[in-house]
Amino acid sequence: MLAVELQAAGLCVRHDCPTPLPGPGEVVLRVRRAGICETDVQLVRGYMGFRGILGHEFVGIAETGRFAGQRVVAEINNACGRCPTCAAGSPNHCPHRTVTGILRHDGGFAEAVAVPEANLHVIPDHVTDDQAVFVEPLAAAFQIPSQIPDLAGQRTIVLGDGRLGQLCAQVLALHGCRLTVVGKHSEKLAILQRRGIETALRSEAEPDRRADVVVDCTGSASGVEDAFRWLRPQGTLVLKTTVAGQQPLSLAPIVIDELRVIGSRCGPFGPAIRALAERTVDVDPLIAARYPLADALAAFEHVTTRPALKVLLDVS
Amino acid sequence: MLAVELQAAGLCVRHDCPTPLPGPGEVVLRVRRAGICETDVQLVRGYMGFRGILGHEFVGIAETGRFAGQRVVAEINNACGRCPTCAAGSPNHCPHRTVTGILRHDGGFAEAVAVPEANLHVIPDHVTDDQAVFVEPLAAAFQIPSQIPDLAGQRTIVLGDGRLGQLCAQVLALHGCRLTVVGKHSEKLAILQRRGIETALRSEAEPDRRADVVVDCTGSASGVEDAFRWLRPQGTLVLKTTVAGQQPLSLAPIVIDELRVIGSRCGPFGPAIRALAERTVDVDPLIAARYPLADALAAFEHVTTRPALKVLLDVS
Repeated sequence: MLAVELQAAGLCVRHDCPTPLPGPGEVVLRVRRAGICETDVQLVRGYMGFRGILGHEFVGIAETGRFAGQRVVAEINNACGRCPTCAAGSPNHCPHRTVTGILRHDGGFAEAVAVPEANLHVIPDHVTDDQAVFVEPLAAAFQIPSQIPDLAGQRTIVLGDGRLGQLCAQVLALHGCRLTVVGKHSEKLAILQRRGIETALRSEAEPDRRADVVVDCTGSASGVEDAFRWLRPQGTLVLKTTVAGQQPLSLAPIVIDELRVIGSRCGPFGPAIRALAERTVDVDPLIAARYPLADALAAFEHVTTRPALKVLLDVS
Repeated sequence: MLAVELQAAGLCVRHDCPTPLPGPGEVVLRVRRAGICETDVQLVRGYMGFRGILGHEFVGIAETGRFAGQRVVAEINNACGRCPTCAAGSPNHCPHRTVTGILRHDGGFAEAVAVPEANLHVIPDHVTDDQAVFVEPLAAAFQIPSQIPDLAGQRTIVLGDGRLGQLCAQVLALHGCRLTVVGKHSEKLAILQRRGIETALRSEAEPDRRADVVVDCTGSASGVEDAFRWLRPQGTLVLKTTVAGQQPLSLAPIVIDELRVIGSRCGPFGPAIRALAERTVDVDPLIAARYPLADALAAFEHVTTRPALKVLLDVS
């Protein structure tokens, strides 16, 4: 089958990949559409040392099992289900887990992918394939209110107007916080303005150390130090993006201002699917381009060289 | 008067310092004893760019005001009392504050020091001068249970067996957590063992990613990365020590493991004084040496060149 594989030499579109064999508890999905995430770009740069088929944002048709014939998305953490961490209700942190398209498990930039049946969620008919690709990153945005339940009324700043910043901003706007998105691209900020979300160009904004919550979606090391300039003492910094390798950083502001820093990764799929079905979140304006799977290298080139929003791979 | 001043050229014992003039709301204390803190060492190395008389751990006799003639210690954050942060009950984070011996306010390595009367706490008679010097750092240790109220039963690791690590460990042991102190000095760990606290030599311990809470008291940049190796997913890292300048660091573990990082600085004086008065915390074994104030340079030499615990300055 056709698949996008990350090899030691780099990214490669293979036409001769073997069709995946489902492991115990797994089913095979026929992939319809997939999305390229900043994490994919980082993986190509060496983050996590991943080798295999990339892709953790995708929608497909289940070929077997109790969802056979239905359109589904898959949670990406494939937990063992038996260890103390799983028993404690945190399968997303199972130390034995694989992560689809990220850690020891092939992903969905392929005509077919094998995933645990327990990880599947059915997509309502009126949610398009394009929209369904956003369930995984949108769930990651919904992880923020699950970690900070008292967002209402809080002065909140999202740093970064890229793919994840856009989704986090829309989700936070549903939770009653006083929200401003600070970014570097007026055309991306305009998408949020059209939804009534307050925005500011970073070059024109003056950090005021008054934010209760800052969500760093910049994907850059400088985002953390910028966040320190916006946060009030005892404020909360949510880290949503990882940066490959070590960065020079001073953590002294965390101690001096007694900040709280919360790492935030994968989130609940249920609220994300509901938000797309009920149209409380609109992802359509975030789609920059669609490439056939065979042109995945051009799609990656698009993501890394132009100020893109979401670039999709059409597999159907 | 005699005082230890940090000048652009370095640390200097001056015999001709003018006696401090109390500002509005301030009283003058005749200092009896003071302690050298890791922060003092960092200040000498350029942290905060402080110039003036050092010293934020001290006990003295109030010369004027409602505590005149009484033996007192002073909280070190000198807040404005009028801004929104003060009104919100966080004077320790007042953006207009000075900090005694640290930020725009002369400290207590001197025969006399002027401090806000509102910051004073009376020391019970049976607490010695030596012990009273520990109120400020011990209060900083009591900040941890004030920030993490549910410590009971939690698997907790203190990294670092130095001055602050010793105090944090004794305070945490009072709060029912399952505590291990990991350090590099068997003679310092022995002090904790004698109090029934479990310890481990870093060179002999294997990080197991099972700790619910790690308190970093190492005062080194590597402490943070070591903490990541001990913490379970979704665990809590308490940062107690600041390091001058930028350090190369990867924050990816915070995101991947959804860690919570809490900066922790100054704490409540009341519990610290009570712990000393009721002898639930024992600071006497932590005293390494006593130097006359005039020999302060030798005292600093002692702190920076030998694996010292607390070095005191005798001012009386």
